[in-house]
Amino acid sequence: MSRFWSPFVKDLVPYVPGEQPKLQKLTKLNTNENPYGPSPQALAAIQQGLNDDLRRYPDPNSDQLKAAIADYHGVDSAQVFVGNGSDEVLAHIFHGLFQHGKPLLFPDITYSFYPVYCGLYGIPFEAIPLDASFQIRVSDYTGMKGGIIFPNPNAPTGCFLPLAEIERLLAVNTETVVVIDEAYVDFGGESAISLVNHYPNLLVTQTLSKSRSLAGLRVGFAVGHPDLIEALDRIKNSFNSYPLDRLAQLGATASFADQAYFEQCQQAVITERENLVQHLAALDFEVLPSLANFVFCRHRSRDAAELAAGLREDGVIVRHFKQTRVAQYLRITVGRPEESAVLFESLQRVLGTTR
Amino acid sequence: MSRFWSPFVKDLVPYVPGEQPKLQKLTKLNTNENPYGPSPQALAAIQQGLNDDLRRYPDPNSDQLKAAIADYHGVDSAQVFVGNGSDEVLAHIFHGLFQHGKPLLFPDITYSFYPVYCGLYGIPFEAIPLDASFQIRVSDYTGMKGGIIFPNPNAPTGCFLPLAEIERLLAVNTETVVVIDEAYVDFGGESAISLVNHYPNLLVTQTLSKSRSLAGLRVGFAVGHPDLIEALDRIKNSFNSYPLDRLAQLGATASFADQAYFEQCQQAVITERENLVQHLAALDFEVLPSLANFVFCRHRSRDAAELAAGLREDGVIVRHFKQTRVAQYLRITVGRPEESAVLFESLQRVLGTTR
Repeated sequence: MSRFWSPFVKDLVPYVPGEQPKLQKLTKLNTNENPYGPSPQALAAIQQGLNDDLRRYPDPNSDQLKAAIADYHGVDSAQVFVGNGSDEVLAHIFHGLFQHGKPLLFPDITYSFYPVYCGLYGIPFEAIPLDASFQIRVSDYTGMKGGIIFPNPNAPTGCFLPLAEIERLLAVNTETVVVIDEAYVDFGGESAISLVNHYPNLLVTQTLSKSRSLAGLRVGFAVGHPDLIEALDRIKNSFNSYPLDRLAQLGATASFADQAYFEQCQQAVITERENLVQHLAALDFEVLPSLANFVFCRHRSRDAAELAAGLREDGVIVRHFKQTRVAQYLRITVGRPEESAVLFESLQRVLGTTR
Repeated sequence: MSRFWSPFVKDLVPYVPGEQPKLQKLTKLNTNENPYGPSPQALAAIQQGLNDDLRRYPDPNSDQLKAAIADYHGVDSAQVFVGNGSDEVLAHIFHGLFQHGKPLLFPDITYSFYPVYCGLYGIPFEAIPLDASFQIRVSDYTGMKGGIIFPNPNAPTGCFLPLAEIERLLAVNTETVVVIDEAYVDFGGESAISLVNHYPNLLVTQTLSKSRSLAGLRVGFAVGHPDLIEALDRIKNSFNSYPLDRLAQLGATASFADQAYFEQCQQAVITERENLVQHLAALDFEVLPSLANFVFCRHRSRDAAELAAGLREDGVIVRHFKQTRVAQYLRITVGRPEESAVLFESLQRVLGTTR
C-alpha cells in the first residue's frame, strides 16, 4: 500500500490465472488450452505479416477480423466487438454495461474473474447458487438487478445450459444486459449468437484461445446489438486504440477460414473427453456432464488437494480451486490421448499410494 | 445512447488516433511511425515462436521482457511494468494512481489521450498553458493536485524539457505521482529513468512503437518505484491477465538486444529530422525545436488545414489538430529521405498553386 495509489487499489483482489509453470516435461492440464496447434492457415497468415510492416500501427478497428467473425456467425460487422482476449472484452463489458448501481447476478460457482471485475469497477454483485447438481436454474435470476452473466458451458463445471433455457431467461429479463460467455461453446454446445437478432439486451462473448488454439495470440470477441457494441467501442477507444496487434489480427482472421481443421480438432477433443470421462469413472471419480474441453470431477474417497499434489509430483498439473463448495473437485483439461495416458498412470499411482 | 449503457458511457469522448488509410502509394507522415523496420533480431525471435506453441497462454507476467527492459535501463525487474502499448500502460496509471479527487495537471497542448482517460475514470483535470514559445514551465505546476503528467519530448510540439527542470519539478512535488511519458525520448532526448531511484513518486513510460519500430506489435512499459508498479500490477491483474501475446513478448525482448541496429535507426531519423527542419524553414515554415521523430511547424502565410488538404491530394498524409491554439500547425513525422523528397515536392506544388 502506498499513499500514491488511487484509494480503491488497496482493496483490489486480482484474478489468479492457472499456473504457467516454466518447467519442461509437464503434462499441463490446468488452463484449458487446446492440445492441438492453431490452423496452419493461421500460422501462414502471421508469417505473411512478419516483416517491416510491424513498424506500422495495426488497424485500430480490426475491420478484417470483424468481417471474418461477422461472416462466420452470420451477423453484421456492426454487431461485433473484438478485444485482447475475451478477458479484455469482458472487462469493457463490466465497465460499460454493468454499472447501474444494482447487483450484477452470476452463479456462485463460475469464472472467478467476474467478482474481480466487479471489484475493479465498483459493481455490486450477488452470487446465485447453482442447484444441487451444479446446474444453473434460470428462474433464480430474478429481482432488481444490474445485469446477468454466466459462461455457457459454465466454468469450472463444464455444464451446458440449453438455448431454450436462455430464451426463457431473456423472455423475463428485458431491461438489463444478459451476457453469455461462450469461451467453451465449441466443444459440443450451441451458441446463443443465433438469438442476438431477437434480443437487443443479449451479448455473447467468445474467445479464440480454446477451440481455435490461439491462447498465445490473445483474441476474443463479443456479438450483440449495435447499441451494445457501441458502448464497448466507446470504452475501448477511451482506453487503448490498438489492443490487437498486426500479427494477432492476421492469425485470428485466417483461423476463421479453416473450417475443416477447426472441426477436426473439435472432434478430437470431444472424443478424448469421452475417453477421459470413462477412465475417471472407472477410477472412482464422479464427473459432472461436460460440454467443454475440460471435466470437473470429484473422487469418491480421496481429498482433491492431495490428489492434485500427488499428480504434480509426476509433472501432471490440474486445477484445484479452494472455494468451499468445490474444494473436493479437480478441473482437468482434455489433452491428447497420450496426455490422458500419463494422467491415468499418475492417478493410479497416487490413488494406490496415498491416503 | 441506450438504456443498457453504464451512465458515464454517454459522456465519453473517445480518443481519435491518426488515420490509418487503407490506400496504397501513400507517403504516410501522420502517426510518427519509424521509417525503418524493426530489428532483424526481433523478427527472428518472433519467427521462433510462430508454431504450435501459440495454443498456449503467454507468460502472464512477461518476465523475460521485464528482465530485458530492467537490464537495458539498469533497474530492477520489480521496477518495470509492461502493457499492450504505452496507451494501455497510461490507462492503468490514470486508473490506479490519479484518482484522488483532485485535478490532474497536464499541458494545454499535449497528448490528446490524457483528457480522454480522465473522462473514462472520472478524474478532474486542469490544462496548464504552455508558455508563449510552447514550452512547459515547471513553476506553473503548483497548488493542490492529484498528479502531473506530460510527454517529454512533448507531443505534438516535439519540445524537450531538460532533466534538470524535471528534477526541479520533483523537488517541490513529493506528494503526488509525476509521470513522464517518454514515447519520443530516443530521438535525442535524455530519459528520466535515471531519476527513478531518487524519487519514489516518479514514473516514466516508454513505448516500443517509435524508436524500436514495433508499433504493429503493441508493447509499452513503465519504470518506477516498486510501490507504483504494484498498483499497476493490481489493476492489470484485475483487468486482463495476459495483455501481451507470445509473439509480442518475443519480439519486444529481442529488440532490446540489438543496440547497434537501434542506434543506426535512431541516427538516421535524427539526421533526416535536421534535413526536414532546414527544408521547411526554406519553404517559409516556422518549426519548433524538436527532439522527437516529428516536427511541429506553421507556415508564415498559409492556412494549415488547406496545406494538409493540398498535401493529401498528392498522397502525402500529415497530422493537423483542430485545437485553436495549434490550428495553424502541422505535425509531420520524420520519414526516409525519399519520403521527405516527396513531401517537399508536394509542398512546393501546394505553396505555388494555392491561395
